Amino acid sequence: MTTKAPWDDGRLCYGGDWNPEQWPPRVWREDVALMRAAGVNLVTVGVFAWSRLEPEPGRYTLDWLDDVLDLLHSAGIRAALATPTASPPPWFSLRHPDALPVTADGVRLTHGSRDTYCAAAPAYRDAARSIAGVLAARYAHHPALALWHVHNEYGTTCHCPHAEAAFRRWLTTRYGDLDALNDAWVTSFWSQHYSDWAQVGTPRATQYLANPGQLLDFRRFWSDTLLSAYTEQRDLLRAANPAVPVTTNSVLGDWVPVDHARWAREVDLVAIDHYPSTTDAGAEEQTALAADLARGWARHGAGRPVPWLLMESAPNQIHTAGRMHTKEPGRITRHSLAHVARGSAGVMFFQWRAPAGGAERFHSAVVSHAGADTRVFREATDLGAALGRLAGTAPGRVQSAVAVAYDAASGWALRHPGMPRDGLDHPGEVAAAHRALWHAGVTADVVPPGSPLDGARLLVLPALYLASDATADWVRRHVHGGGHLLVTWLSGVADEHARVRLGGYPGAYRDLLGVRVEEFHPLADDEQVSLTGGGTGRIWSETVHTDGAETVSAYAGGVLDGRPAVARHRVGDAYAWYVSTRPDDDTYRRLLTEAARLAGVTPTCPGAPAGVEAVRRHDSDGTLLYLLNHTDQPQRVPVTGLDLLTAATVDGSLTLEPGAVAVLREAAR
Amino acid sequence: MTTKAPWDDGRLCYGGDWNPEQWPPRVWREDVALMRAAGVNLVTVGVFAWSRLEPEPGRYTLDWLDDVLDLLHSAGIRAALATPTASPPPWFSLRHPDALPVTADGVRLTHGSRDTYCAAAPAYRDAARSIAGVLAARYAHHPALALWHVHNEYGTTCHCPHAEAAFRRWLTTRYGDLDALNDAWVTSFWSQHYSDWAQVGTPRATQYLANPGQLLDFRRFWSDTLLSAYTEQRDLLRAANPAVPVTTNSVLGDWVPVDHARWAREVDLVAIDHYPSTTDAGAEEQTALAADLARGWARHGAGRPVPWLLMESAPNQIHTAGRMHTKEPGRITRHSLAHVARGSAGVMFFQWRAPAGGAERFHSAVVSHAGADTRVFREATDLGAALGRLAGTAPGRVQSAVAVAYDAASGWALRHPGMPRDGLDHPGEVAAAHRALWHAGVTADVVPPGSPLDGARLLVLPALYLASDATADWVRRHVHGGGHLLVTWLSGVADEHARVRLGGYPGAYRDLLGVRVEEFHPLADDEQVSLTGGGTGRIWSETVHTDGAETVSAYAGGVLDGRPAVARHRVGDAYAWYVSTRPDDDTYRRLLTEAARLAGVTPTCPGAPAGVEAVRRHDSDGTLLYLLNHTDQPQRVPVTGLDLLTAATVDGSLTLEPGAVAVLREAAR
Amino acid sequence: MTTKAPWDDGRLCYGGDWNPEQWPPRVWREDVALMRAAGVNLVTVGVFAWSRLEPEPGRYTLDWLDDVLDLLHSAGIRAALATPTASPPPWFSLRHPDALPVTADGVRLTHGSRDTYCAAAPAYRDAARSIAGVLAARYAHHPALALWHVHNEYGTTCHCPHAEAAFRRWLTTRYGDLDALNDAWVTSFWSQHYSDWAQVGTPRATQYLANPGQLLDFRRFWSDTLLSAYTEQRDLLRAANPAVPVTTNSVLGDWVPVDHARWAREVDLVAIDHYPSTTDAGAEEQTALAADLARGWARHGAGRPVPWLLMESAPNQIHTAGRMHTKEPGRITRHSLAHVARGSAGVMFFQWRAPAGGAERFHSAVVSHAGADTRVFREATDLGAALGRLAGTAPGRVQSAVAVAYDAASGWALRHPGMPRDGLDHPGEVAAAHRALWHAGVTADVVPPGSPLDGARLLVLPALYLASDATADWVRRHVHGGGHLLVTWLSGVADEHARVRLGGYPGAYRDLLGVRVEEFHPLADDEQVSLTGGGTGRIWSETVHTDGAETVSAYAGGVLDGRPAVARHRVGDAYAWYVSTRPDDDTYRRLLTEAARLAGVTPTCPGAPAGVEAVRRHDSDGTLLYLLNHTDQPQRVPVTGLDLLTAATVDGSLTLEPGAVAVLREAAR
Repeated sequence: MTTKAPWDDGRLCYGGDWNPEQWPPRVWREDVALMRAAGVNLVTVGVFAWSRLEPEPGRYTLDWLDDVLDLLHSAGIRAALATPTASPPPWFSLRHPDALPVTADGVRLTHGSRDTYCAAAPAYRDAARSIAGVLAARYAHHPALALWHVHNEYGTTCHCPHAEAAFRRWLTTRYGDLDALNDAWVTSFWSQHYSDWAQVGTPRATQYLANPGQLLDFRRFWSDTLLSAYTEQRDLLRAANPAVPVTTNSVLGDWVPVDHARWAREVDLVAIDHYPSTTDAGAEEQTALAADLARGWARHGAGRPVPWLLMESAPNQIHTAGRMHTKEPGRITRHSLAHVARGSAGVMFFQWRAPAGGAERFHSAVVSHAGADTRVFREATDLGAALGRLAGTAPGRVQSAVAVAYDAASGWALRHPGMPRDGLDHPGEVAAAHRALWHAGVTADVVPPGSPLDGARLLVLPALYLASDATADWVRRHVHGGGHLLVTWLSGVADEHARVRLGGYPGAYRDLLGVRVEEFHPLADDEQVSLTGGGTGRIWSETVHTDGAETVSAYAGGVLDGRPAVARHRVGDAYAWYVSTRPDDDTYRRLLTEAARLAGVTPTCPGAPAGVEAVRRHDSDGTLLYLLNHTDQPQRVPVTGLDLLTAATVDGSLTLEPGAVAVLREAAR
Repeated sequence: MTTKAPWDDGRLCYGGDWNPEQWPPRVWREDVALMRAAGVNLVTVGVFAWSRLEPEPGRYTLDWLDDVLDLLHSAGIRAALATPTASPPPWFSLRHPDALPVTADGVRLTHGSRDTYCAAAPAYRDAARSIAGVLAARYAHHPALALWHVHNEYGTTCHCPHAEAAFRRWLTTRYGDLDALNDAWVTSFWSQHYSDWAQVGTPRATQYLANPGQLLDFRRFWSDTLLSAYTEQRDLLRAANPAVPVTTNSVLGDWVPVDHARWAREVDLVAIDHYPSTTDAGAEEQTALAADLARGWARHGAGRPVPWLLMESAPNQIHTAGRMHTKEPGRITRHSLAHVARGSAGVMFFQWRAPAGGAERFHSAVVSHAGADTRVFREATDLGAALGRLAGTAPGRVQSAVAVAYDAASGWALRHPGMPRDGLDHPGEVAAAHRALWHAGVTADVVPPGSPLDGARLLVLPALYLASDATADWVRRHVHGGGHLLVTWLSGVADEHARVRLGGYPGAYRDLLGVRVEEFHPLADDEQVSLTGGGTGRIWSETVHTDGAETVSAYAGGVLDGRPAVARHRVGDAYAWYVSTRPDDDTYRRLLTEAARLAGVTPTCPGAPAGVEAVRRHDSDGTLLYLLNHTDQPQRVPVTGLDLLTAATVDGSLTLEPGAVAVLREAAR
Repeated sequence: MTTKAPWDDGRLCYGGDWNPEQWPPRVWREDVALMRAAGVNLVTVGVFAWSRLEPEPGRYTLDWLDDVLDLLHSAGIRAALATPTASPPPWFSLRHPDALPVTADGVRLTHGSRDTYCAAAPAYRDAARSIAGVLAARYAHHPALALWHVHNEYGTTCHCPHAEAAFRRWLTTRYGDLDALNDAWVTSFWSQHYSDWAQVGTPRATQYLANPGQLLDFRRFWSDTLLSAYTEQRDLLRAANPAVPVTTNSVLGDWVPVDHARWAREVDLVAIDHYPSTTDAGAEEQTALAADLARGWARHGAGRPVPWLLMESAPNQIHTAGRMHTKEPGRITRHSLAHVARGSAGVMFFQWRAPAGGAERFHSAVVSHAGADTRVFREATDLGAALGRLAGTAPGRVQSAVAVAYDAASGWALRHPGMPRDGLDHPGEVAAAHRALWHAGVTADVVPPGSPLDGARLLVLPALYLASDATADWVRRHVHGGGHLLVTWLSGVADEHARVRLGGYPGAYRDLLGVRVEEFHPLADDEQVSLTGGGTGRIWSETVHTDGAETVSAYAGGVLDGRPAVARHRVGDAYAWYVSTRPDDDTYRRLLTEAARLAGVTPTCPGAPAGVEAVRRHDSDGTLLYLLNHTDQPQRVPVTGLDLLTAATVDGSLTLEPGAVAVLREAAR
């Protein structure tokens, strides 16, 4: 018997990370039986198995993995087979101390955790290619193999001599000559002019504030360096069997030196790991945003659309600072189906079975320390069944006419020291705009600057700090093509090297917006400003001069009393809005609702009550409407169609129980 | 004239650390006169005198110490003579830079404070033995010598190459072969399998979370290494004169890599340093706990009971984070006598005379910067007189029928990263249980797992995370022998290697308790849950299934609504209780009162009002009742006997003035 | 055409830091035109231009600076020409890695910011002298040159081998022999006795608390070392043209290892950089204090009075922790004129034009990113005009009869670990006393201990922790000469080595004050004590015994209930006050008002309403009264004279608009 990859036959992927190397074969068999019971069809294996696969340099012990893959195959479960390069074995570190990472303070880290390598160290790259090659040679045609899963959550940096040399090479390629680098980094400030490439180093510990251009390029360098570590494995795996897709799983957040949009061009499937960081309703908002980010990368990243998949998620916990919160009953399913609603090719958990030891012994698992006679396992089984009922529903195209721009480098640049305020946070501002739209019932795409805006009636730039000329052109073309635009404070203030565009903020969009900002008035953490028309602003305010724009709302009170807070500029038939503060959530929601309305965008499901998330997908069969009731009350939604989860026909009105989800094949409207 | 050691003739020790090396002989004579006035009979000398005793390598200047000891002897004061090895002189560090300690980040610390050595460095050990040998040869038969006081507050760690090599040797001894180590540390997680001993190191800075097994063994290794540094000095001192007892003073707390229970087997007297860390009533609760810990180690540690002594305490300050709080009048005496009540062989202060300089120039002292015409000196003199009146009262046996288990390694393991919640704190949970008993008027023993439980009707395990099979047996034998048991959350969850015991928590005690815990629900810091029957829980909650136990109180509200919070299981005639959250103090007090009552345990002095601490001791003359009024109101206590402090006869009722203490030789009851 | 330095012809300096090296010549010409429009007459150039002046070792490119200075000269603007030694170019660091600074943890910092040198490294000192010599040779007689501005904000430390050797040499000079050092540092504590100079090092990372004497001398050493780096440049510049004055700009605060009073003896002009750190009214209080500090150093530092100048200030921002607050309209002028009122020779901004990049791209500037069509530029232009109207008003002598003592070393010593409380803050206590006087309308001098107290009727010592015998004598002479004295807690507690003076606090002033302090009772951060007569104390309290003094107010409640809080001692006709806690601001104001009154000191402008700052200066033409309305209401002040800013005659009463400033040439009174 052979099995197709789940997506090959219209099924949704379901499964998670499985670590048979931590358990005796008796447990493998128990696990596979449980997987079948839960409806699992795909598992990730081998992620951290290097020391088990190659216990000594060049000695390979693969028999166990043969058995594991055969066992999976015999059970009709496919494998996302990982290269184990995210955790070199102890022998590697002992043999290649120069490949251990070095911090900005010059501390050489040691083995003892995971990711203890410098991705710019030749010895590491050699070893990684070797073990990947061994796996490729052995398993590229194994019938259980559905996907290559390279590495795990690339995201480390290093300041060792290898890294420094590589950084210099990268800069040489980027800038060609030192004059260009000196210009980009504004080394005329503080006497930092470089007269020889040998003087250029990584941003190690220094006396006081570091150079922003250097900091920004260091992150870009690492994104590219890590990506090259990925692509060399990918090429080797692909060569062994071009039919097997290759990916790597990405961790989100701007703390990671990865430009996901750029990476998306190199994968056959965008895979994200998503763990909400808050226990309140923010967990659902974050879930929607993560899915929309992944979809944006998958759709626009590679020039060709690729699928995307939630590759890791926590079955029963939300990890917050200092605590692992146990998810409430039903929340696992809602988080999972929220991803599927927005296009995920399935649901994968980290992890299948909880280990008895190791650093993550208390991480979330489907089969917990208490075993399978547990609420979590039962919910996972129910979810497996629900996913089965959704088989055959193609991801289709999520209905959206609003695009929100997200840009990794803008996130990095706003974290630099010396900004007018600490805590500036591009992803946070993207989240705030996305959250406002989410509460307005409007589904948004989240897109990298420069990607095609087909179908977007309204483009939102939330603190999109950096604007290259190309980005500025992209925005201008959208507006001149009739698209609406909403730009918030700090967007377009700097160019791609984080150099301020002079002449009044936001240098890149002043003309388009019909405003000129003279001075920033960053607010203290506990400070807020009132706005005419109601509502408040936080974090930031500005002296805005209108120059063609009309004032929509003004500051009320304080030194900016009466001056524009929100303005809009008529450009052709469209509006270009400028928002100079961070509105409170309700005001932001009303503002974006109005901007969307003027752009001709209405909520996905206008009659859905607050707290009911609605996502509509178009496919060849028509439309599919996902409805998720995030409230603790029954909610009535005016819809008509067939609920695929319950096989019930809905005629005009559906009552969703607290926490329940429905997936409607809608009647033609 | 010769003097016996205070305890040789039934006296209580009284004195403190004295540093004549900081002062000219004129001040020595003034000090000795003041000591006599204050009733001092024992002083600790030489603790940090190495550079004065051996100003250059191999050149010894001991005449001043001869004079000091002779002066003490002539005044009838005995000496606890210290080996000065806690602070090597600058010349040592210059000559042996390899013996300076190295942090986890690889920073080699420098001289300039104290404890600037690696206890695994051969050069340090050689030098320490040498100076100890010189002192032994010169003073082992000095008539003033009452006690050898080795070192001071052992408690440092190191990551230098000496330490790493020693750690590897220790692991080889512990595990025999690498397979056992790999198994204990669960190195199958994150590809950490060791294939050669040379790959194993100390837990230095690494990329992300460290291995819990490695962290735990590193602490154990340091406890054993420091202990061997102690025992080699002890053996040498003992060889010089077997009649003189040897000890070292221990600092409490789980931050220190010392397993006190294990150390107690190697001393002739358990000596603790105790400094409460809070200024409110917690200072008295901490004092009682410290004394009970010391008594537990002294009673059970060595197979043979040894005396214990409060070796350091602060005469007039409580050091809190950021502030030295001056003790209120009378508090010095109450803290001191609280220790004596619970068996201390006396009261020793750090320090006798405050230095004019040095890092601890503002540390507490009997003779302060202001001299001896001070409240503190007068209170110390009064205390000396009170202790004199208690001469002849043998420590006897403290009356207790409740044992609370404390285990250093459980404390260490709960501090590891990756636990379900930050801030898990075995000593803190021991303190909470002890505090509840203290407020219930029930005196408790605090004991290491495995020690004889003679007389204990109720055994309490507060978050005793680790349970080896031996510990599980010890608990089982107690219950099967008719003893009652109360176990709180996180007890018995892991084995001695911190590997989770599978199949439902708490793996070690599930059967005994008749419960199975399916999921943890750690609470946020500011979160609490309600319990049926009143009261609240904090820090932690759980999905508890009863399996033979009856529910005593349930969670009220929230996701655990209606599920068991506290359960008890009938085992023979006894109860085995399970408490799945941290009750608020009052609820905990009521719960333990009830558990004690069912075990046949009643308060020490049932009629004592709240805030009056009562401790009863049995000796050959009958019973001695210590009563300490910690309130600011007079309190009436129904007792009969002779108050040794005032020589007043008490017939049926004693009124204790605010802050006052009475010690009653009770009439036979 | 030649121009005099502004102060040579009675003008006030006006300008700021200008960085033509960051801009093309086109912008230079625009800048100079804007400077002329704004009334600028002095600019600081070249501060961070080393890499532009010497792009490779020994290759100098000075033509651009020739052009810049010629351009300034042709515009009638004078230059404060800086030596660029605060930021060596990258080539220097690459060539001399041993001259890069090392932290206490042993981390060798790298290039990439500014100040990346060890000022004790010979290679750095050589290079600094070389570039300074090149500038001296070329520009010492340039007609635009008004002032040499050496370096920028000296203030770094280092622990490298060069620094360690230099520290040892400095200590050898200071102490002569090791016995004296051992005595000063009290090395008898914790076995720290040094038997060879080679054992003495810098206070690098160590195991626990460091030696206070070592910490204090390390700071003194750096102050002297940095000063020698300055003086060797100064000598070389002065030799090239003795007519040109030399200075360096000082940053304030006790975190910087600079004893400003000592440095003032070596400059021809005291130059301070001042940036308030709070956005509320504290900014104005800090401004007054900074000016009074500078005046104190300028007046007393060198034996000869020298002028002082506000060399850097922020035109439009207040940098607080985490945020750059935009100054409210008018505040720029008030801050600037507050400095002029207290004697500044002018107003200099950092910086003239905001850079597009570099670490300080968002630092405050006169010509901002938005250009010159801005509020800030307009306010700066108005200020330039106002300063022009004040031309010819000599700094004269500020009217003051109260002196507040400030001592860098006392600030350093109070920051040491092991103090009775964290957060002890001599500058903060100086600020509290100065603030109380400021609100009382009393102008104070702030003076270094030992400086002449001519004219001071009342001397205030706020937590002046250290008292050498010379300082104690200075205070005693003041009182015995009829001066009044007010001493607060922690003053005079220690000698110049931070060794506690024994026998009761404050050892240095016990007799003079007629008090003896037995015990400290430091308060918790959120704690306060009540005082009889109203008001509260914070931070600190004490057991005070009067011994000749009378109790002015007592503690009310708590353990100190009824004991003296504030006492005063009649000495001849004067009072010596002792204040044992930090009174709340209002109580402190009343207390100092009373102490001043008894000393015969009255407010500068008795009829000025609260919130109106008044400073009077005496010069040969009579008196000049500065009035600054810091409130947002019009305020009426009873004065008579000619307002130099408006040319209006004021007869008996002046109404100051909100935020307005008047400078009155007063009619003879």
